[in-house]
Amino acid sequence: MPPRQLNPAERLDWLRLIRSENVGPVTFYQLLRRFGSASAALEKLPELANRGGRRAPLTLFPRAQAERELADLAKVGATLLAWGEPDYPPALAAVDDAPPLLAVRGDPALLGRRAIAVVGARNASANGRRLARDMASELGRNGFVVTSGLARGIDAAAHLGALASGTIAVLAGGVDVVYPPENQELYEAIVEHGAVIAEQPVGKLPRPRDFPRRNRIISGLSLGILVVEAAARSGSLITARFALDQGREVFAVPGSPLDPRCRGANDLIRHGATLTESVDDIIPQLPGGMIEEARTRPAPPVTPSWAPSPPETVGEPRDSARGQIIERLGRTPVAVDELVRQCHVSPAMVVTVLLELELAGRLERHPGNQVSLL
Amino acid sequence: MPPRQLNPAERLDWLRLIRSENVGPVTFYQLLRRFGSASAALEKLPELANRGGRRAPLTLFPRAQAERELADLAKVGATLLAWGEPDYPPALAAVDDAPPLLAVRGDPALLGRRAIAVVGARNASANGRRLARDMASELGRNGFVVTSGLARGIDAAAHLGALASGTIAVLAGGVDVVYPPENQELYEAIVEHGAVIAEQPVGKLPRPRDFPRRNRIISGLSLGILVVEAAARSGSLITARFALDQGREVFAVPGSPLDPRCRGANDLIRHGATLTESVDDIIPQLPGGMIEEARTRPAPPVTPSWAPSPPETVGEPRDSARGQIIERLGRTPVAVDELVRQCHVSPAMVVTVLLELELAGRLERHPGNQVSLL
Repeated sequence: MPPRQLNPAERLDWLRLIRSENVGPVTFYQLLRRFGSASAALEKLPELANRGGRRAPLTLFPRAQAERELADLAKVGATLLAWGEPDYPPALAAVDDAPPLLAVRGDPALLGRRAIAVVGARNASANGRRLARDMASELGRNGFVVTSGLARGIDAAAHLGALASGTIAVLAGGVDVVYPPENQELYEAIVEHGAVIAEQPVGKLPRPRDFPRRNRIISGLSLGILVVEAAARSGSLITARFALDQGREVFAVPGSPLDPRCRGANDLIRHGATLTESVDDIIPQLPGGMIEEARTRPAPPVTPSWAPSPPETVGEPRDSARGQIIERLGRTPVAVDELVRQCHVSPAMVVTVLLELELAGRLERHPGNQVSLL
Repeated sequence: MPPRQLNPAERLDWLRLIRSENVGPVTFYQLLRRFGSASAALEKLPELANRGGRRAPLTLFPRAQAERELADLAKVGATLLAWGEPDYPPALAAVDDAPPLLAVRGDPALLGRRAIAVVGARNASANGRRLARDMASELGRNGFVVTSGLARGIDAAAHLGALASGTIAVLAGGVDVVYPPENQELYEAIVEHGAVIAEQPVGKLPRPRDFPRRNRIISGLSLGILVVEAAARSGSLITARFALDQGREVFAVPGSPLDPRCRGANDLIRHGATLTESVDDIIPQLPGGMIEEARTRPAPPVTPSWAPSPPETVGEPRDSARGQIIERLGRTPVAVDELVRQCHVSPAMVVTVLLELELAGRLERHPGNQVSLL
């Protein structure tokens, strides 16, 4: 599918669809593939949710609210990039649950360059911050854009180090919501010299669950992620986990076992991440790791399986098929492929039944194309 | 070969043979295998050296000097253990260049127990020392003896941590020569509670080249070695290299890239050593890693290929064979196996020619059964 710009009506429909209840990115692309357009999908949504077992009618995201969101975006100087548009980050586009729409402030040209994420502890040590800043600068000198999450500590140090060469901050709330507030100045500097992106609506404060979702965008934008200091069970490890699921390289800076802030990074190394003392440990490990390539190589063409047209022709699932699939679902995540193998119905039919269940609010999606009942 | 004690005459001959010019451990065992006894080998030594191209006659180590060494050992309260004797450390016995004779002060029973080496930087940080001491104690609690080199820093901390549970110091000079002198008290404590061993003659000050040779004994005694802090190109890395050549596990404690003392340990991890934050990272990796086994399992029977009897019957090499072999030798180390493959003479003949060259002072042996001309 060649990159193309959405027209204003399509953009509004995309926004209404992704903001509608129980529609996540994976569902969004499935609906697009199934019905050919966001507008057609919106029409079918209530019926699908109903077939999935939903009692109360599903309310679509109101057109007026979507129009207000677009106006608010314009007010804060942000643009909305749709998946498939020329500026949409190519590495992120290859991810299953890439945001269908990304709000951007700053220079969208940065999104097309090869990027490395640098993430780590908020309560980082002085040494950890120094390492993050120095390595981010060095990555910049080698032609890489540095992505991170604008958090305290390692994230802020990484953005600072790469401010001159190119850095992208991915926010968990709206593209205009600076969190933590102490990073307001850094935020302004990134808007001026780099780029800030977000998938949540303008003005939206981040909820706790938005941070891990944001982390999948940080890793998705990047060829690899570098974890500088990370405690056990920290957000940086979630980003590393996403990176692995997305087929990206994971790098970690080792540290003393006496420092609990290093435990997560050491653990990553123990489980296969590349032990990293300088960018010399990173660059040769990247796909096409040459510096010149990093500067000049165009992104690979992206043609994922859910490219939105033409619409698929899938019959309406029979109740027997639906029953078979639901019977095999439980609270423990199961791979969709496994469901297809076990139920004697077509893959497209399984996808449709899962879609209905999700729209009815009965299904949860997990990394690795797994699903569970709620 | 069942363990047996040497009689006093044999012990004296062993000592004379290993102390004779150009006789290293590998040559020692080859001579024993070839001639059946140290006494027979001593008789043949001058002739072999002569055939290897030596001009000046080779002087054997004088009987009187060997007797004096035995008397000196008794004076400092040390005993001399021969390879194959019941107290000889079983893990070390399996190493190609195990010392034929080991001087021991302290409790020789420790030598039969499963051991882990803990080694590292002399200029270790306070944190590094603490880690070494704590992990040595913890290894002791789990039934392991801790071996090290009585150096400043990590070595001393490791010995201290395992003083109560069992520790072995391996010295580079004579078994009575404390180096560095500041560790005199620690030395005395180890003699009292643990064991001190050495392969060099009593009273001999260590030369620089004795330290790497000593390190092969530290790793050879041990199922695995733990490197706590080690700069690039440090002695601890030599010990790790020996450990790998000897088929032992290598463990390393990670540290900040900003601390040059951690660079060597980090590099070991990068090249496959187990990242180690606590003994929980060590014990499961050891052969038969169960704790109870560590306490009770007897050593595996050792029957290396150079078991000293019966004598081999190898003809005297023809000059053509000798010429062929020498032609393929140079200053770059070459594997003995490769020589055997390339020259059309028997392996035993190649070994004999190399033996002659070594006794003539023209050959150097390297790890991995490699040799080069001097």
